[in-house]
Amino acid sequence: MTDPRSGRGPGVSLERVDGPAKLSGRCRYLPDLRVPGMLYACQVTSPHAHARILGIDAGAARARPGVHAVLTAADVPGENRIGAVIDDGQPLLAEGSARYAGECLAVVAAETEALAREAAALVAARLEPLPALLDLEAAMAAADAGINARGPVAAEARVTKGDAARALAGADAVVEGTFRTAPQEHFYLEPQGALARPEADGGVTVLGSLQCPFYVQTAVARTAGLPLSKVRVIQTPTGGAFGGKEDLPNEICGRAALLALATGRPVRLVLERREDLAATSKRHPFLIHGRLGATRDGRLLALDLRQDAEAGAWASLSAPVMYRAAVQGAGPYEIPHVRVETRAWYTHHPPNGAFRGFGGPQAAFAHERLVDMMAGALDMDPVELRRRNLLRPGGRTATGHRVEEGVGALETLERCAAAARAGEDAVAPPTADANRWLLATGYASVVYGNCLGKAGWHLDGAGAYLQVHRDGSVSCAVGLIEMGQGAETVITQFVAEALGVPPERVHLLPVDTALVPDCGPTVASRNVIMSGNAILDAGRRLRGRLAALAAERLGGEAADIRFAAGRVAGPRGEMAFDELADEAWRRNLNLAAEGWWHVPPLDFDVATGRGEAYFAYSFATQAARVAVDRLTGQVRLLKVWAAHDVGRAVNPAGIEAQVEGGVAQGLGLAVTERLVRADGRTLTDNLSTYTIPTSVEAPDVETLVVEAPHPLGPGGAKSLGEPALIPTAAAIANAVSRAVGAPVDALPMDPERVLALVEQGHHGQDPLF
Amino acid sequence: MTDPRSGRGPGVSLERVDGPAKLSGRCRYLPDLRVPGMLYACQVTSPHAHARILGIDAGAARARPGVHAVLTAADVPGENRIGAVIDDGQPLLAEGSARYAGECLAVVAAETEALAREAAALVAARLEPLPALLDLEAAMAAADAGINARGPVAAEARVTKGDAARALAGADAVVEGTFRTAPQEHFYLEPQGALARPEADGGVTVLGSLQCPFYVQTAVARTAGLPLSKVRVIQTPTGGAFGGKEDLPNEICGRAALLALATGRPVRLVLERREDLAATSKRHPFLIHGRLGATRDGRLLALDLRQDAEAGAWASLSAPVMYRAAVQGAGPYEIPHVRVETRAWYTHHPPNGAFRGFGGPQAAFAHERLVDMMAGALDMDPVELRRRNLLRPGGRTATGHRVEEGVGALETLERCAAAARAGEDAVAPPTADANRWLLATGYASVVYGNCLGKAGWHLDGAGAYLQVHRDGSVSCAVGLIEMGQGAETVITQFVAEALGVPPERVHLLPVDTALVPDCGPTVASRNVIMSGNAILDAGRRLRGRLAALAAERLGGEAADIRFAAGRVAGPRGEMAFDELADEAWRRNLNLAAEGWWHVPPLDFDVATGRGEAYFAYSFATQAARVAVDRLTGQVRLLKVWAAHDVGRAVNPAGIEAQVEGGVAQGLGLAVTERLVRADGRTLTDNLSTYTIPTSVEAPDVETLVVEAPHPLGPGGAKSLGEPALIPTAAAIANAVSRAVGAPVDALPMDPERVLALVEQGHHGQDPLF
Repeated sequence: MTDPRSGRGPGVSLERVDGPAKLSGRCRYLPDLRVPGMLYACQVTSPHAHARILGIDAGAARARPGVHAVLTAADVPGENRIGAVIDDGQPLLAEGSARYAGECLAVVAAETEALAREAAALVAARLEPLPALLDLEAAMAAADAGINARGPVAAEARVTKGDAARALAGADAVVEGTFRTAPQEHFYLEPQGALARPEADGGVTVLGSLQCPFYVQTAVARTAGLPLSKVRVIQTPTGGAFGGKEDLPNEICGRAALLALATGRPVRLVLERREDLAATSKRHPFLIHGRLGATRDGRLLALDLRQDAEAGAWASLSAPVMYRAAVQGAGPYEIPHVRVETRAWYTHHPPNGAFRGFGGPQAAFAHERLVDMMAGALDMDPVELRRRNLLRPGGRTATGHRVEEGVGALETLERCAAAARAGEDAVAPPTADANRWLLATGYASVVYGNCLGKAGWHLDGAGAYLQVHRDGSVSCAVGLIEMGQGAETVITQFVAEALGVPPERVHLLPVDTALVPDCGPTVASRNVIMSGNAILDAGRRLRGRLAALAAERLGGEAADIRFAAGRVAGPRGEMAFDELADEAWRRNLNLAAEGWWHVPPLDFDVATGRGEAYFAYSFATQAARVAVDRLTGQVRLLKVWAAHDVGRAVNPAGIEAQVEGGVAQGLGLAVTERLVRADGRTLTDNLSTYTIPTSVEAPDVETLVVEAPHPLGPGGAKSLGEPALIPTAAAIANAVSRAVGAPVDALPMDPERVLALVEQGHHGQDPLF
Repeated sequence: MTDPRSGRGPGVSLERVDGPAKLSGRCRYLPDLRVPGMLYACQVTSPHAHARILGIDAGAARARPGVHAVLTAADVPGENRIGAVIDDGQPLLAEGSARYAGECLAVVAAETEALAREAAALVAARLEPLPALLDLEAAMAAADAGINARGPVAAEARVTKGDAARALAGADAVVEGTFRTAPQEHFYLEPQGALARPEADGGVTVLGSLQCPFYVQTAVARTAGLPLSKVRVIQTPTGGAFGGKEDLPNEICGRAALLALATGRPVRLVLERREDLAATSKRHPFLIHGRLGATRDGRLLALDLRQDAEAGAWASLSAPVMYRAAVQGAGPYEIPHVRVETRAWYTHHPPNGAFRGFGGPQAAFAHERLVDMMAGALDMDPVELRRRNLLRPGGRTATGHRVEEGVGALETLERCAAAARAGEDAVAPPTADANRWLLATGYASVVYGNCLGKAGWHLDGAGAYLQVHRDGSVSCAVGLIEMGQGAETVITQFVAEALGVPPERVHLLPVDTALVPDCGPTVASRNVIMSGNAILDAGRRLRGRLAALAAERLGGEAADIRFAAGRVAGPRGEMAFDELADEAWRRNLNLAAEGWWHVPPLDFDVATGRGEAYFAYSFATQAARVAVDRLTGQVRLLKVWAAHDVGRAVNPAGIEAQVEGGVAQGLGLAVTERLVRADGRTLTDNLSTYTIPTSVEAPDVETLVVEAPHPLGPGGAKSLGEPALIPTAAAIANAVSRAVGAPVDALPMDPERVLALVEQGHHGQDPLF
């Protein structure tokens, strides 16, 4: 894909196109926006994890001057349902009962933010507290706690390949473990927010900090009782999302839209940080029990996993999270016998939902701990055990999907191990006091199914819209968003490649449901693949038209014309792209084209969990060098070597940034972050109590790019956004286990737990961990 | 095109889709818009018709607190040129000299509108007044007044067919006349205005009350030195334009954009009515001298015309106005010998520019007066003379274009004359005092070349973008605007037709340069033809994809599937369109399509004025029943019978509205409106001195629809917007000439002039008029 003449296409690092605006402060986030006549909205939420709603008296609030509306479930003109993937009855405004602390009972719109909050306090919700189910194992034990009419399980998935039980019985070695992970908060820069503007024709336009404009369009249309054509959704610059703005904006935008339509005024709803932290979705906590069997020469034979997760009060994204956890549950290995049973259970916590990795990090924690434990049991080097079992081209995944191309698993391991082994001894401990620190390196290898897979195939199409202007500059619209991951830069590169123009000539339009058809959600690390392919498709159409015109002057047929670096060349000469654009304009050529791409149909049987779970797979191996403080139990992540098979590197600088961010977030999951709740209410609702890693904790990261291209990726490119994070916690856990000589079986590894492991371990030896 | 099952497609009247928002006040025009942080702009203009700019001292203005910018020509970062069609050096901000009173010397942006005006008053422009050329005939007489480096003629056009001079010499009867028309003001609802917002990436978004978003995009990019891709232009609801918002918004939007980019703040520039009236373009005043020859049996033989017009200080739209005036100069008749010479001359008045009709009403006034004069000379009924000479299918236009289809000229005459003759005697005079009123009926027949013709062919393409949503509702974007003419309603009908859905399911997006490629200007009555064809093109693509899917269930091939009234039918049954849309969405079909259409290439020789001047022609005949007050000279237009060949009626109710509006505006041109200037300064700068017709003056109009479809029109449709106005003044002039018994040779027919004619005439006789 790289254009050797411009040196500026995919494959060559491009500075972030959104960088200057974001660094200079010119970029305006949703909470910066105000429009004339705007009202401020505020939510009235349940303080109880579970309560019957006896009534909501909004009289006093409504009577307050400057208050324009107080709306409850009774005021929803359309259907009071917003479930994005599983329609399990999740309401826009609670009806009958409140099922988690922070669930929204009513919304208020008033002239000022202070007035809105005053009015919200005047809304008298008569709630009868009910017993709350707040524990995953209790939820699993209860026959059915009656939280949802669908039963106790919000979502489930399975994988079966061969006969895992029989194979385990005949294995030379079997290791077994139980692994627990905790909820994790996304902690994006700006909290959830939306600004809805009623339109003169009865429709509504919604601006929002969001990942999935088409989800929001659907939710607003449904709750407001409008056709989709009358709901326009425009993404505002989004300072991080990580899955946390996948379905939550359905609620926030839906409530703002409802208020805007009810009052006839623009309405802005922005959560305070504490509200956001208390009520928005988190990463699913998992309880995984697994048994892994192998031959004595280190061939993995069988894996039997039970993965249970807490869904919380509504299903949210539990279905795709369970699907991915199950499919990726056996890791990147070719294991002949696999059984995975995965379930998400309803409780009375806020719904757990989408979070970068989608169950992958939790699953990786389990399978990579099991692999290291097996290495211990076989007295084999963990890298060597991985080497012997990683999926090769032509091998079959855990779902039996034979993969011929785009399998770079082994190369990620070799590159990572070589770099780590060459460098680990040179990594200095945090302080010179060498006795204080237990040092070790841990490895984790992972697989990542690209895009939505069979479970979301119907959403896995995307479009792009290209306009060549008369001066040869180009505008591009796509439907998948920039949320800090660097998408705009990569998309710019694809447009530049598609038309052979310098990236400076490319302008990206805001993501706007008016500009492209439903492109599905910006999740599953699918932006590069989907938007990239759609742009190349649109580019082919435009180039076809332009080439036919160019051939008139440059000779040959349209197929002989080449576009590169802002020049157009044919057998008889060349010309500037800008000049060709002007000529095309004067000749009345259509200079706009829409492109489209969708994932090919997948042959996968949901009942058995066999077949093509995803159309392509990314692979990664990370090695983590840690230092454990013998005195305090504190874990320091010193360095990470991260080898990622991205298919084809589009923007190498962007890959480094993605991986560094992923590693930091993985460190949070593994070590620094702990969500504390009491009676279902969140106590750690700010940055001083919920401690995400800072630049002080962030390790040195050495990114190693592996390119095993997939023929259907744009130029061969595959997913990276989530794989950047998925192995990190597992690698750290393996490193800590090795350092302390005792097995880590729960995340996060906070100092108290690690100190207990230090005491339990026999460091200096090499225990079976 | 009419869909018999829905009864709702083209051909059946649809209520205005923009009606409720406009009637209720929910529709917000540009002067209603405010955004946070917005600055207010104000222009500093020349009080002199011609002056040398010695210097502009903005120090005091800039020093005033709250003033953010004062910009002059020196501050234009790109090229200081905005000429839309002829690039004759017209600047965004005057440089070197000011060439008309009202020309903009500087722009100011400040925190409030009052402060901006105060600051503008503090800008000290040192101007040296110079002699001004303010008279068309003086401009023609001067060899070259040096107003523009291009010479004295801003634009010219000609038509030659046969040998007019020789044919006139051999004619049985020749009539000769000199005809004068005056400038006319558009008097749209809201004055010129724009709101420009700087974008974080260094680009700019401009909202404006405008007709030609792509002109504005080009002008802003050029003056700001930006690529077109970084300039986005969105039309705000436009309360009338009539050509007055064709190129003027280049100035207004260009200045607002410049200030926004200079200050980094949103900037709004809205003219006051008096500023708008004083400095914006008007309808070109014409001086036409013509000689018409005929055989004694009423065959028109030859026409020799010289049309001179005043361009004003810059060329503006003089080129297409001269082109149309020349091509339509001989009217809708088949005349074997024609010569037309047309020129627009520079003067020091504000530029004359685009105005509904584009020289057509002025030309019609001359050719229709000459035809009536010939009828007098031959002692023949004016209707009969027209009947013998109107263009028939297979005939040749004045430019020698043989037209086979879409020629409804004769039918417009017959329908109009039959209706007028049946009804004219029943039209009551304004008062019962019968002696006071001189009553008569006058006729005028016209031709109208559809779209831009050869002179603007390179701009005569247009696109459309359709999106079918999952729920079967449809969004549509086009690049040609609604300005009161009913375009949105007709476009809705075309979308409904294109996809076979009820019009309620169609939503039109605002006109926005981001949504469609350059569609050219919204002028030349081209919206229905261009957008209609582009929508049908996009609809074909979408139907193709949907039909293939529908055939799987409904049987047959894609070609067997029918779309109508929200249902989709095939050999084996039918289904709802909405259901098919949902199925297509679930199957990952691309549900967006762009359509495109352009006028076919035209074989026309500009040097000789021979060939295909336009691809299609509309025809019209109007009859005007007038009463002339013997005592005061006041002309009352009592009734108009208006027969219009629209090719195919898309929205019959809209046609009536178009014609009623056109007749009223023609009445203004003919009778009520008079622009008064002194030393180049406009004195009639408000509604009490510049008197457009009101509902009191508006006549009863009987609209008669003639349908001679053109094969390339969408469903056969042709232009109507301008033809609605073009014959009116001529018909009134013929009626008044007949009523008073003396020839009207100048517009407007104000009471003083008409009273003189009454005294000159010999009413009761049938003079040679």
